Amino acid sequence: LEWIGDPLVGRGVVERRFDLTVDERLVPGIVWTPEGADTPRPLVLIGHGGSLHKRVGYVLSLARRLVRHHAYAAVAIDGPSHGERPGANATLSAGESLRTGQLPEWWTDATTDDMVADWKATLDAVSALPEVGAGGPFGYWGLSMGTIFGLPFVAAEPRLTAAVLGLMGIVGPTAGRIERDAKQLTTPVMFVLQSDDELFARPYGLALYDALATNDKRLHVNPGAHSAVPVDEYLATERFLVERLSGAVVAG
Amino acid sequence: LEWIGDPLVGRGVVERRFDLTVDERLVPGIVWTPEGADTPRPLVLIGHGGSLHKRVGYVLSLARRLVRHHAYAAVAIDGPSHGERPGANATLSAGESLRTGQLPEWWTDATTDDMVADWKATLDAVSALPEVGAGGPFGYWGLSMGTIFGLPFVAAEPRLTAAVLGLMGIVGPTAGRIERDAKQLTTPVMFVLQSDDELFARPYGLALYDALATNDKRLHVNPGAHSAVPVDEYLATERFLVERLSGAVVAG
Repeated sequence: LEWIGDPLVGRGVVERRFDLTVDERLVPGIVWTPEGADTPRPLVLIGHGGSLHKRVGYVLSLARRLVRHHAYAAVAIDGPSHGERPGANATLSAGESLRTGQLPEWWTDATTDDMVADWKATLDAVSALPEVGAGGPFGYWGLSMGTIFGLPFVAAEPRLTAAVLGLMGIVGPTAGRIERDAKQLTTPVMFVLQSDDELFARPYGLALYDALATNDKRLHVNPGAHSAVPVDEYLATERFLVERLSGAVVAG
Repeated sequence: LEWIGDPLVGRGVVERRFDLTVDERLVPGIVWTPEGADTPRPLVLIGHGGSLHKRVGYVLSLARRLVRHHAYAAVAIDGPSHGERPGANATLSAGESLRTGQLPEWWTDATTDDMVADWKATLDAVSALPEVGAGGPFGYWGLSMGTIFGLPFVAAEPRLTAAVLGLMGIVGPTAGRIERDAKQLTTPVMFVLQSDDELFARPYGLALYDALATNDKRLHVNPGAHSAVPVDEYLATERFLVERLSGAVVAG
């Protein structure tokens, strides 16, 4: 873990930019922790959506809420060909590619393997920090491309206690891999879909929810387009993670 | 509104049994309010499931939580042929009847009309109490048979601000009525389904959710049988009603 630049501190949240090298791949990331933290705490790994990056609004917002409201740590990394990855460029989102028939270079089983390794290395490195700790609990949050890579990661990572997935289905060039991994996944999951998703039609998403091997799963469906997840649904996903990671029902 | 017997008071909740007469039908009900309440407050109307009654565990529990945690009022009435209605007997639930092909006497469009009138009269009578008030806001909560009768009531009652419905679909002897009413329903709704519902298969439920005319609707799906709604889902329905009725996001 190589720290890049100076920490940003605001309203009790410390944000630190890092680079990690995994099998010769440069993985740029950000870790968020409470100011003054020096003891272990829960950690949530956050995967961003296609054509976005590790500091996009909803990632930053979730990370800061987890730190400020629950004294958790959070970490996000750029996906392959995204953000500050070497050679990253304006890549197609998965949905765009389904619509145009042009597959983005990153949507392959091999890239999925790489990203699963990147997440595992990130979890290793960040949980080695004294202000995070290796004892967990650990959670994962990622919708859309954050599920394309995140579902295989969650299925392969026994250290995770709970995951938020969704805005994806059994569809696309890695559909076979996604379905096989879903059938291995025994981690508690909240799964989010949009009824009018113009990129991944709802039946594909329902099939993916149904394929999840875990018996501890919840499906939340809202009206509207792929990117129109309501604010209170974001809050519900945060509540789900905190309830599962802290082992307590959140007030309300 | 004729009060029956003495109020029950426990842990700050006053429970009062009443009878109401609507078009010569005797409608037995219970109203719950905070101890000492003498000013207006939000009211939630709670419909019970088939073969059950107005004081079954989950109705009582929801009513008491609404009073104790939010200082709301709540009211429940027995459904036709249920509880303390004259001539009530051990009636089939809707699900049982679908399974056996024996329709219960209450599952008709005419009984639905009666029950909508009973709910409207109940809302009129209870909102005339000074400790409830006619200003609202008012909400409805009812799953399974509580949706068979409740959905038509919600569609017909403009005084309602939000509703929780579910464990039902476009199916059964009143399916046509249910579908038509859903297409008129513009109240915000949280809709709950069980993936392994042995009484109302999930596709019928999805079709009913999709038919709801309101754009402000949420679908929550859990694994398990008809009666296996998880405890935290009950809490989520309560949170939805309180957020919509109090106009504030509940902490958590």
